[in-house]
Amino acid sequence: MSRFRPFPALLCLFACVLLCPSSHAAQSGKPNFVVIFCDDLGWGDLSCYGHPTISTPNLDRMADEGTRMTQFYVAAPVCTPSRSALMTGRYPVRTGMCGKRRVLFPNSIGGLQASEHTVAEVLQSNGYATGMVGKWHLGHLPEYLPTQHGFDSYYGIPYSNDMDNVAPKEMRRTVFEDPDYHHFNVPLLSGSGDDVKQIERPVNQNTITRRYTEKATEYIRDNKDKSFFLYLAHSLPHVPLFRDKPFEGHSRAGLYGDVIEEIDWSVGQVLDTLRELNLDKETLVVFTSDNGPWLSFGDQGGSAGPLRNGKGTTFEGGQRVPGIFWMPGTIPAGVISRELASTLDMLPTFAAMSGTPLPENVVLDGYDISKTLIDGEPSPRHAMFFYRDTRLMAVRYGRYKAHFLTQDSYVPGSNVVNTHDPPLLFDLELDISEKRDVAAAHPEVISDIQRIVADHKANMVMAESQCDRK
Amino acid sequence: MSRFRPFPALLCLFACVLLCPSSHAAQSGKPNFVVIFCDDLGWGDLSCYGHPTISTPNLDRMADEGTRMTQFYVAAPVCTPSRSALMTGRYPVRTGMCGKRRVLFPNSIGGLQASEHTVAEVLQSNGYATGMVGKWHLGHLPEYLPTQHGFDSYYGIPYSNDMDNVAPKEMRRTVFEDPDYHHFNVPLLSGSGDDVKQIERPVNQNTITRRYTEKATEYIRDNKDKSFFLYLAHSLPHVPLFRDKPFEGHSRAGLYGDVIEEIDWSVGQVLDTLRELNLDKETLVVFTSDNGPWLSFGDQGGSAGPLRNGKGTTFEGGQRVPGIFWMPGTIPAGVISRELASTLDMLPTFAAMSGTPLPENVVLDGYDISKTLIDGEPSPRHAMFFYRDTRLMAVRYGRYKAHFLTQDSYVPGSNVVNTHDPPLLFDLELDISEKRDVAAAHPEVISDIQRIVADHKANMVMAESQCDRK
Repeated sequence: MSRFRPFPALLCLFACVLLCPSSHAAQSGKPNFVVIFCDDLGWGDLSCYGHPTISTPNLDRMADEGTRMTQFYVAAPVCTPSRSALMTGRYPVRTGMCGKRRVLFPNSIGGLQASEHTVAEVLQSNGYATGMVGKWHLGHLPEYLPTQHGFDSYYGIPYSNDMDNVAPKEMRRTVFEDPDYHHFNVPLLSGSGDDVKQIERPVNQNTITRRYTEKATEYIRDNKDKSFFLYLAHSLPHVPLFRDKPFEGHSRAGLYGDVIEEIDWSVGQVLDTLRELNLDKETLVVFTSDNGPWLSFGDQGGSAGPLRNGKGTTFEGGQRVPGIFWMPGTIPAGVISRELASTLDMLPTFAAMSGTPLPENVVLDGYDISKTLIDGEPSPRHAMFFYRDTRLMAVRYGRYKAHFLTQDSYVPGSNVVNTHDPPLLFDLELDISEKRDVAAAHPEVISDIQRIVADHKANMVMAESQCDRK
Repeated sequence: MSRFRPFPALLCLFACVLLCPSSHAAQSGKPNFVVIFCDDLGWGDLSCYGHPTISTPNLDRMADEGTRMTQFYVAAPVCTPSRSALMTGRYPVRTGMCGKRRVLFPNSIGGLQASEHTVAEVLQSNGYATGMVGKWHLGHLPEYLPTQHGFDSYYGIPYSNDMDNVAPKEMRRTVFEDPDYHHFNVPLLSGSGDDVKQIERPVNQNTITRRYTEKATEYIRDNKDKSFFLYLAHSLPHVPLFRDKPFEGHSRAGLYGDVIEEIDWSVGQVLDTLRELNLDKETLVVFTSDNGPWLSFGDQGGSAGPLRNGKGTTFEGGQRVPGIFWMPGTIPAGVISRELASTLDMLPTFAAMSGTPLPENVVLDGYDISKTLIDGEPSPRHAMFFYRDTRLMAVRYGRYKAHFLTQDSYVPGSNVVNTHDPPLLFDLELDISEKRDVAAAHPEVISDIQRIVADHKANMVMAESQCDRK
């Protein structure tokens, strides 16, 4: 019997009081939530997802003690839109957090609109302490910062770690090979409310994973007597790659492996802190990534394992990511879940688990997956819509995925959009690498998918692109 | 402290007697050995190696309770030579168990020569009971059968389950789509010594995994008071695919997934039997496969995960396979080992762990890896030589692999052999999918590899091909 169930709340409260009287989260029936979000980490980059040479003992243990999802999706194959979907539970086309420019850049003037409701705001409305550490990338102008979107405090970088490339012109392309953080004039921000300041520029990226980790564990300690939501969004393993001294040469898998192994260490620090404070049983920790690996960077890009392609594409390698859920005593240990789920589902799930009302008059694309996580029930999610920028490229429905449009990753020639009519159809549970088109054999599946696409479009109000605003 | 160490034997014996006085294996200092060998199961086909939809809870548990090797190799990318290497600890070119025909066929007259020493013979010489259940494929004529090569008893099929294809001519190619065992006139043999009889033809392959399992667990029960070696060589998931009624539709991953899940069940039966008889701490169980997945069979072929290509090729997907080692209390639990090892190493390792002398005047290509398995020491293996038929195609040396020759799998046009001078060079620990040739950057590695190739060739006496004998 789990302690945190969406219903019945009273029973939950009773059990909590009975079993762990000292914890605020338990007493209130409001578990803590920690989301550890990586940048460009691929489905195949962790030992527990099959990487042969990168060693991730802390994440492997987290998976052993919790649930590892193998069909967990983000809502976009690049940073800004993916992050907006995690925060709002809405496809990026609804919030305008996508566009021809793909993501926000340092010269962008757009950002997540005040009218949107983030998971931080939703939990804040129910008395949660909320903190963010790491990369935001939903608008760097003052009105768009995390502290304007429900986070009490913020420490991190406002956009990607490869932006503000100030290397000498002849080095702009080679600057990733042996990265020096001075070539990336990225600011580090810190503060709360309207008082968020730039405290370092360029941010020393060599120590950034360690410093994020210290801030995250400090946040947990400072808020141990409250119900809290912590969003720890690592800015790595996005290129340029950096790691702290103790992780130089730490892995068998080069610089990229070192970076992943430092993130693994970081996860261990967070979980150990929760254990030490006896908050482990009252805290749901989610580990995932914003999109697949940036394969065009070769040795400095990660692996999607057996999945096709990577970051930027709407093939599985672009949007299927690790998804590990940990809450000892509530989420059963050692489970591998093959149910469909998405970062879109975090907002409704956290709301349900904490008894927090959902925002009113908002179209949400997420589902409450708490019963899937806690009781092993089938997922309420049956479909995923795959957008690249503002175009609907593909749809997963049950075990099948139809590609109406395909396009390669960001490599020379990748601007070619291939149209498929009938769509390419893959059976993803059988044909895990999207190799064998079965459209001819399953016209009925294509009809079903065309029907749900029509429904989806009929209910879609697309917002003005914030990425393309000038 | 482990109970079975190669040295010091006395200490080992003492500890065994102290801790488990009732077991013969423990009293004698001679652990039992069980090798579970699959046919064409790929590196990526198990949950614990990252398959997203095939569910293998018994193998996952075996890995959790033992050591999962991520860089474990067979010595050839097809059946007959790979099996000979497991049995003898010698590259197939030394024993003649390879050739232009690739493997033995029902019309072959060759087989494993009496002059060779199998792991069964070696252990038999030290008083072990030895039994084999499953596919042999090292010669089906009476003089080559398992019972002529050190096994007390044998129950299984003599060659591949797709041979003796007697389907009507127009169905010969499509007969794999919805397999009926009557189309494959494969015999089932059973017996001991010179008395091995055909007991069924065609063998009912629907029930073959279940029947192998029953025979294997029966063997363990019958021999529980001895030290024993059991070789359980499943004839699946080689096409044609079959599974017993309870496994029809068992998996999310179609017929292929069903077959793997029945094998997983089988592994659970074997381990449960050992636990029930209190033999688990006295028995080393090894789970592996004879080569990579037969990718040209599409939905009916498996997955090499992120590894390149599959069965038949000397890319990683052809020869790197799952390797799970389980011996609770001796082999540490929950270890992922990234050390190099091979089925070639089984004979010397079992000999060392059981205090059995190695055969005299025999060139062995295997190493005793017991200290790697038990104590986590670096592997004594630094190189693997990759042969296709009788040609040396590639060499792994440390983290690098040089391909002198490459050739595609058995698909139309695959008879083209590509010569590479300088060789293609891949850093396998960084570039797990063999995508990025780094030969130009590492001439010193190529020199080292050329040197070990010269040594290898200088010490190689190739035997007459048994596969090509007429």
